[in-house]
Amino acid sequence: MTTENELKPHVTLDTIVSLCKRRGIIFPGSEIYEGLQGTYDYGPIGAELKKNVKNLWWKSMIYDRDDVEGIDCAILMNPKVWKASGHVDTFSDPLADSMGPSRKRYRADHVEPIECTAFEVIDVTDEGSEKRIEGAKIWAPSKKKAKEFYQTWWEKHLGLAGRRVKLEEVAGSTRVGRFSPDDGGELGEPRAFNLMLSTHCGPVADSAAKVYLRPETAQGMFVNYSNVQTSMRRKLPFGIAQMGRSFRNEITPKNFIFRTREFEQMEMEFFCKPGHLCKEGELTDDQWHEHWVEYRTNFYVKYGIRRDHLRFHYQTKEELAHYSKACCDIEFLFPLGWQELEGIANRTDYDLRMHMEHSGKDLKYFDQELNTHYVPYVIEPAAGVDRAVLAFLTDAYLEEQVKEDKRVVLKLHPELAPIKAAVFPLLKNRPELVEMARNLCREMKQSFYTVYDDTAAIGKLYRRQDEIGTPFCVTVDVDSLDDQAVTVRDRDSMQQVRIGIDKVRDYIAGELRGKS
Amino acid sequence: MTTENELKPHVTLDTIVSLCKRRGIIFPGSEIYEGLQGTYDYGPIGAELKKNVKNLWWKSMIYDRDDVEGIDCAILMNPKVWKASGHVDTFSDPLADSMGPSRKRYRADHVEPIECTAFEVIDVTDEGSEKRIEGAKIWAPSKKKAKEFYQTWWEKHLGLAGRRVKLEEVAGSTRVGRFSPDDGGELGEPRAFNLMLSTHCGPVADSAAKVYLRPETAQGMFVNYSNVQTSMRRKLPFGIAQMGRSFRNEITPKNFIFRTREFEQMEMEFFCKPGHLCKEGELTDDQWHEHWVEYRTNFYVKYGIRRDHLRFHYQTKEELAHYSKACCDIEFLFPLGWQELEGIANRTDYDLRMHMEHSGKDLKYFDQELNTHYVPYVIEPAAGVDRAVLAFLTDAYLEEQVKEDKRVVLKLHPELAPIKAAVFPLLKNRPELVEMARNLCREMKQSFYTVYDDTAAIGKLYRRQDEIGTPFCVTVDVDSLDDQAVTVRDRDSMQQVRIGIDKVRDYIAGELRGKS
Repeated sequence: MTTENELKPHVTLDTIVSLCKRRGIIFPGSEIYEGLQGTYDYGPIGAELKKNVKNLWWKSMIYDRDDVEGIDCAILMNPKVWKASGHVDTFSDPLADSMGPSRKRYRADHVEPIECTAFEVIDVTDEGSEKRIEGAKIWAPSKKKAKEFYQTWWEKHLGLAGRRVKLEEVAGSTRVGRFSPDDGGELGEPRAFNLMLSTHCGPVADSAAKVYLRPETAQGMFVNYSNVQTSMRRKLPFGIAQMGRSFRNEITPKNFIFRTREFEQMEMEFFCKPGHLCKEGELTDDQWHEHWVEYRTNFYVKYGIRRDHLRFHYQTKEELAHYSKACCDIEFLFPLGWQELEGIANRTDYDLRMHMEHSGKDLKYFDQELNTHYVPYVIEPAAGVDRAVLAFLTDAYLEEQVKEDKRVVLKLHPELAPIKAAVFPLLKNRPELVEMARNLCREMKQSFYTVYDDTAAIGKLYRRQDEIGTPFCVTVDVDSLDDQAVTVRDRDSMQQVRIGIDKVRDYIAGELRGKS
Repeated sequence: MTTENELKPHVTLDTIVSLCKRRGIIFPGSEIYEGLQGTYDYGPIGAELKKNVKNLWWKSMIYDRDDVEGIDCAILMNPKVWKASGHVDTFSDPLADSMGPSRKRYRADHVEPIECTAFEVIDVTDEGSEKRIEGAKIWAPSKKKAKEFYQTWWEKHLGLAGRRVKLEEVAGSTRVGRFSPDDGGELGEPRAFNLMLSTHCGPVADSAAKVYLRPETAQGMFVNYSNVQTSMRRKLPFGIAQMGRSFRNEITPKNFIFRTREFEQMEMEFFCKPGHLCKEGELTDDQWHEHWVEYRTNFYVKYGIRRDHLRFHYQTKEELAHYSKACCDIEFLFPLGWQELEGIANRTDYDLRMHMEHSGKDLKYFDQELNTHYVPYVIEPAAGVDRAVLAFLTDAYLEEQVKEDKRVVLKLHPELAPIKAAVFPLLKNRPELVEMARNLCREMKQSFYTVYDDTAAIGKLYRRQDEIGTPFCVTVDVDSLDDQAVTVRDRDSMQQVRIGIDKVRDYIAGELRGKS
């Protein structure tokens, strides 16, 4: 038995990144132009995987239930939305500039205060005489580090390249503070830096035309609450869900698709009766909150996340946003350690109230039974598509020893697998085999996504499909011409069975259902 | 027999817009804040419809074929991409400002030159004396129009509200030119106005951090051409496809979802051998172009577009972009008349060549058979999701006389229908009926998207489902308790059949397949 604290990631992020690049899962964005920080492009295999994640979420939220409606809103919204939501005023990071020569900007709260000492820069002439360079102070935790800063920044800044230079500690200058890790410059006062990306719509680029790219999909649900409730004749409780791109100007996008500037969300706002108005037997907002934590956890586990790779962090009073009654972060053991995978918050009536105030529209719900109006409470399960993709990739990733070889296999749930089956001819120079394999592929495609491949020897073809998580490989060999049967290989067990060619499609369809 | 020229739209845009709002198909974006010009939000019914359009396109492009890979790229791309593609330099509209008091900006090429005369503004005092207002000239095609301009613009501008005023024609001032239709001011010199929306990424909002929101999805395919070709081991010919949001700063977004600032595209780049390198029997780029025109046309017809509501405009030499060898616009008879639905272009090797030049990367293809390197030609079928949705809505829309009533019905193809079946209890105050209906709904959902509704009388429930195109309605009535059967009503014929409750699911699944 291991406890969660003993668990360590079983795969590094580098391994995942390299598999993703090699196998057409995820490429750096705009790669031929040296990329664009914080963006990624999903390749053919990744696009299917991401699509499957999204479709399964949509199915579990909309089709499998009776109480959630899906919508699909514009990324550009009226800026008043973000004023009402609080994003204009408070969705910011504290940034501070280095006063050293790099002038680099940092997340002030990401730079740990350290003990530093000032070093003066002394120019040593060929004759050995020393000249103190006025105002050239390098703050660093050690002389070694100060030298490093000197080499990377100050040397260039001072025009002393190639000169002999000495660094001398300024006596009694040691103190604790925030200093640039790149040039030792002290950080100035932090200033709030809004994380929303903005643009201008219309022919005149003035402030009146300033529009934000949504930093979350959630506000689309609040803004459309009334439209959806009316047009779909909904009574409480009911939810509104959507999936789509959001944008945040993260200062330091990092860890592959974990933190990017452009990302995809799957969010749902579940509108329900405030607990204090509920009668015996009705679910309160607290109970709905618990319901959604469980429902969303089951989703991840159903599609392949190990239960012991999930843990729940219930935010403390101090951590909670002021309007939030409760918030549960579902954390996953990513290759980079335990990190948030999904947050499920009880946002009370805060958002609708804010929008009532700012829009002047009445968003109260008329409860026929209670014969009264009130503002619904909201439970919000907010997930990231890219993080979910990374989580599923992580827990599916396995390296196995097969005789002398190492096999990399993605044991993806069949519903997530980008390709369900692949068909190969054992010999690509035998037209009868090729034709048989192509025909079989075409037939199987009608039931599930199947690909044909003959670009390598059979062993290599198996490995390729293992690496992208294809549950079944089918090989047409010379015997197939006689016995009208083919070999079906199972990704996980590597067991092979011989199946009549007219039964393969049903056989694999059944196996896929069985594993689902 | 009608010819295409005699055809008139059978439904107005207003009718479609109002149906969309009423039935949760499409709402104006950010509506509670008076909207945001050029954006729309898809409601529950519209989100499904749009999803179905996209899924069917993906199926027809990727799953049904062997030669196209799907990808899913970031909206934000390295700005060098748009330099290479020509968008930075030439993707612009000519804008001209009115020199009248409104200072409004116009698409110069959208303002027809007209004959105008200048009218002077003369202030008439209470005593009847007249004072010519210096420099207050109104250009207008008629005195009547000049008065109108005066009332809406000049009066305010001149501070003459409430005063008696006379307009006097300036003799000999009549001439032809471009004048503001709002204030009669002459339009200044047109200037190029780039249609890309831009934003800034990173902590410093300087020009180095300027990034564009993609104005088309196509460049994602070119930029990833090499990554996809290598990781998927593709040989020519093969295509790369993606669907997703694009943004254009249209000066005058209009006609509902036909022209918006944020829209969704479905584009594919099909890389093939240039015709002059083809040997006998190989399809040339010209033939692939024809193939895709036909393939895409069949797609629209298969899912419900009337063949005679489509026509083909092959661009003339004068109309073609300089790099384009051929371009076929598939036009559809929208409620606003014949307009482009999809463009299919033969872009030759232009895009890859440009990216080679700007990125310094070699994007040539090595042809093993010919033992030579060349840059592939590209056929690009580029469709708009929103326009496709509007087209399908248009051709599905029907008003029928049913006895004394008018029935509005969307005769959507079953694969496009947002909801496949609805289940109603005839009496909502009979718990046994409600339970039976709910159970049936739950069972049917496992095969296709089914909803339960009991919020109105049966006739009204039928009409609602007709209006959103639900192919089948199932009613549980008092007899159902005895005979364990229900009434299934067909959307199109309105015929009702009695089916055993244990057979309904299979029956409807079969009918849906039959109609597909």
